[in-house]
Amino acid sequence: MGNKGDHNRQRIVEAADQLFYHRGYNQTSFSDIAQAAELSRGNFYYYFKSKDEILSAVIARRRDQLCARLESWSRDFAEPHACLRCFVRMMLDNRSELLRYGCPVGSLTQELSKTQRKLQVEAVALFEVIRVWLEDQMSRLKLQDPAGMAMHLLAVCQGVTLLGSVYADPIFLEREVGRLEAWVDRL
Amino acid sequence: MGNKGDHNRQRIVEAADQLFYHRGYNQTSFSDIAQAAELSRGNFYYYFKSKDEILSAVIARRRDQLCARLESWSRDFAEPHACLRCFVRMMLDNRSELLRYGCPVGSLTQELSKTQRKLQVEAVALFEVIRVWLEDQMSRLKLQDPAGMAMHLLAVCQGVTLLGSVYADPIFLEREVGRLEAWVDRL
Repeated sequence: MGNKGDHNRQRIVEAADQLFYHRGYNQTSFSDIAQAAELSRGNFYYYFKSKDEILSAVIARRRDQLCARLESWSRDFAEPHACLRCFVRMMLDNRSELLRYGCPVGSLTQELSKTQRKLQVEAVALFEVIRVWLEDQMSRLKLQDPAGMAMHLLAVCQGVTLLGSVYADPIFLEREVGRLEAWVDRL
Repeated sequence: MGNKGDHNRQRIVEAADQLFYHRGYNQTSFSDIAQAAELSRGNFYYYFKSKDEILSAVIARRRDQLCARLESWSRDFAEPHACLRCFVRMMLDNRSELLRYGCPVGSLTQELSKTQRKLQVEAVALFEVIRVWLEDQMSRLKLQDPAGMAMHLLAVCQGVTLLGSVYADPIFLEREVGRLEAWVDRL
């Protein structure tokens, strides 16, 4: 595939990524994506044969972005507390989107878990990237149960994001991030 | 409406309640509900003109059930710690459904928040029932910030349910419920 093909493919995946996040996977049609990517449906089918294929590409894109972000923190901050604080504060970096649409990983996984179990398994890989990275930080802190602590932190962040978006409440989000930072400092 | 009408209406709302929980609101069609309630579509339209109307009835049903449950705990256990422990342990009472489909309140609200903001406002009333009851328990414990503590507990329970269902992990769920019970005891 030449440069133009790569470019079109990337446009489709970027448009789908945003639509799946903002509207949900099931509420986004093939036509919605073609329109947002400004491609004709015929042209579009050249790149993707089904919405499931696009979802796989979107998940791969999100995984790459997530890995890059987590790796940059590991590189910039050797100290695990600092890494964990970056993770917790990510909820404030993305606050306006989180308060409006929830967590892109949590909301997608929850939606797919209802009726699309096969696709859900792919989406869980996004959680796995985060969980493994968190477990690594917890291990470096020599905690007794690093796997359990990683799952606990992930769960609390998910709950805070969900309730923050349900109530569209930035003050709640800030307070809970502060609480989590204090928790991280005590580890 | 006579007894038969009441009965048919109730059958529709019960069937829709389960389908919305198991499949999601958007993935459930009018026909799915009619079929599950074993009514013809014509008969069905006599009771409900739209899926939105059914959702309102489902939300009212869930609210009544939730209120009855919370009130029974307040009645049976005068002591707020005991009430809060019942709330936390509700996650284990419903564990098989929670591990498969997530929280009925959280997953519905999150789904509707994407593209159906008007309906989402109705669904948030379910969270409000819980939040207000939790705040009442926290107030009776004479905590400094009962509203904030209520939101915090609600958020953690949502996150635990979400992650428990993502990983379909009963051991994680039990461990986190134990952690929350210990947290409640320290209040």
